[in-house]
Amino acid sequence: MTHPIPRSLKETLAHIRPLDARDRTEAERRLDQLTKPPGSLGRLEAIAAQCHAITRGKLTLPLRKGAYVFAADHGVSAEGVSAYPSEVTAQMVQNFLQGGAAINVLARLHEVALVVIDAGVDAEFSDHPALWRKKVRRGSRNMRIEPAMSAQELDHALTVGLEAADDADRKGYALVAAGEMGIGNTTAASAITAALTRQPVEAVTGAGTGIHSAARQAKEQVIREALERHLSGSTTPDPLHVLRCVGGLEIAAMTAFFLGAARHRKIIVTDGFIATAAAALAAALAPPVREYFLAGHRSQEPGHAHLLRHLGLEPILELEMRLGEGTGAVTAMPIIASAVHILAEMATFESAGVSTATA
Amino acid sequence: MTHPIPRSLKETLAHIRPLDARDRTEAERRLDQLTKPPGSLGRLEAIAAQCHAITRGKLTLPLRKGAYVFAADHGVSAEGVSAYPSEVTAQMVQNFLQGGAAINVLARLHEVALVVIDAGVDAEFSDHPALWRKKVRRGSRNMRIEPAMSAQELDHALTVGLEAADDADRKGYALVAAGEMGIGNTTAASAITAALTRQPVEAVTGAGTGIHSAARQAKEQVIREALERHLSGSTTPDPLHVLRCVGGLEIAAMTAFFLGAARHRKIIVTDGFIATAAAALAAALAPPVREYFLAGHRSQEPGHAHLLRHLGLEPILELEMRLGEGTGAVTAMPIIASAVHILAEMATFESAGVSTATA
Repeated sequence: MTHPIPRSLKETLAHIRPLDARDRTEAERRLDQLTKPPGSLGRLEAIAAQCHAITRGKLTLPLRKGAYVFAADHGVSAEGVSAYPSEVTAQMVQNFLQGGAAINVLARLHEVALVVIDAGVDAEFSDHPALWRKKVRRGSRNMRIEPAMSAQELDHALTVGLEAADDADRKGYALVAAGEMGIGNTTAASAITAALTRQPVEAVTGAGTGIHSAARQAKEQVIREALERHLSGSTTPDPLHVLRCVGGLEIAAMTAFFLGAARHRKIIVTDGFIATAAAALAAALAPPVREYFLAGHRSQEPGHAHLLRHLGLEPILELEMRLGEGTGAVTAMPIIASAVHILAEMATFESAGVSTATA
Repeated sequence: MTHPIPRSLKETLAHIRPLDARDRTEAERRLDQLTKPPGSLGRLEAIAAQCHAITRGKLTLPLRKGAYVFAADHGVSAEGVSAYPSEVTAQMVQNFLQGGAAINVLARLHEVALVVIDAGVDAEFSDHPALWRKKVRRGSRNMRIEPAMSAQELDHALTVGLEAADDADRKGYALVAAGEMGIGNTTAASAITAALTRQPVEAVTGAGTGIHSAARQAKEQVIREALERHLSGSTTPDPLHVLRCVGGLEIAAMTAFFLGAARHRKIIVTDGFIATAAAALAAALAPPVREYFLAGHRSQEPGHAHLLRHLGLEPILELEMRLGEGTGAVTAMPIIASAVHILAEMATFESAGVSTATA
């Protein structure tokens, strides 16, 4: 099955460009003139060169940073796939708006602007300055029984993500991340990961928020049934079809957000398992988008390592985090800022009057 | 051989206390009440609990942070152990004072106060507000021929480090790091590492600032001769004797700095190979000091992994850095700040009205 590419996404896809190797080389040459042994800042140097190439050398400091947290409920949570009841999605959205969640603490500390987007929570919210009310539907449908979204719902969710990317561009953020909240969404991410990486379901399914071994086996069975129902026989699955059938509304919005952000030449920091599943869908739709990604961290969810390998990404942090919300991405942002400032602000051997290596 | 413990250090050693397990438990209990699945912030939670225990729960935010960069020359650089001429030590000190080095960029970005300390550079400096002129001697002696320091010089260098720790305490820094600059100092660090960890010299000797394979073998030979001359036959080497014979003036100052910082209950972030060699000497003198350490990163110098294992430390970052100056420690500081703010500022399930796990 192939899902037709909606018009809005089509335009975005047409504007995503691969990075120019000359921009990277320009940064690497400069890095070698700075007052340090060549290469001695390790991965910070590679990160700096990539950021230079993404932004075509037009980065202004201090870095402006934005994180968009997409929330939605999942019909599949009716199958008992999570340790938490689905009302927690809405409760956590309220917690985001009150500033008490982990992502709020980290965003405040690291000066990252935070936008919370209701893409499909099964509850109604009052107006709040930090909330975008963009509900597509009160939760996706149960993938074990039917596709998680209709074609129209998918298109709507994609539009929400593109709007967020446009917002990031208007606000002048150079560094962006997408986070998520959605009870049941590791089930969707595992299904997507199995479909895209061709790994067996049991290799890409984990404990999520903390289910035990028997519940995990039941979760695997739900994923197997959903994949069998919607994707059996397709050897190279169409990414939009995968997204529509076994994804989620927040995952669809994040997929489009990544595509829009790459189109706007933003440095994109991926978060954990669910956000990276969206990143993998984005890369399946537009392979050059990978070059705009920096992997913020590697989570403890077993599927995440498979996705990172699939995308050819090396995580910046490995701190055994598994919370989502964008927490891993935002925690990695100061490291990326370190790299960018090194390139922009260090003295050269010549300007500082330091002798170079004799060897 | 045993080196008598100087009076100043004796007092410091007597005041270093192990952490109280109850303080850690108090933090862990609180972490489990915060609005996230238990343990889902991974190592950030362990870091938060350790910081809580080090500071006995008396941490005030925002964290005040200080980095002390100790510089000295090394007589052993006459043996051609470095890719750079020894005049680079003084040139880099000037670069630190002008704000153009990597550590300056990172300290500015992450709001870390920086103090540069001449503990024994082979050059004279003019007065500068960011420079402490504490020169013990214009470079240590050549360890291949004689002990790197006399007993008096060692005592003097230790005092410099204790003064820096007292300064950090007076200024109210909660989080401190020591960095270094000293052409030839990976040779000293490798010798110390071989002596403390009982690893063969070739396992703990690396390329330093970038020497090639033949020069590296010569460097190993110099280290072997120095160890043979000063430490042969001692199965459990006296740490101060090791430090005096094969250390360096900045390494001695850092060793005392770590001890003084632990005495003042500071959270200590270790940097790369050379700073961690000083940390290992500090831990040999006062084992509880280990509990005050957070390993900022793992460097590419092969001896560093051995030292971290010896100290039982897991690095926060692994970014293939190998610059020193405190760059790895300062790059890790925002991660530590993330952990500390999480513990202090997140809402609890109860305060936010979020349902807990059903499992």
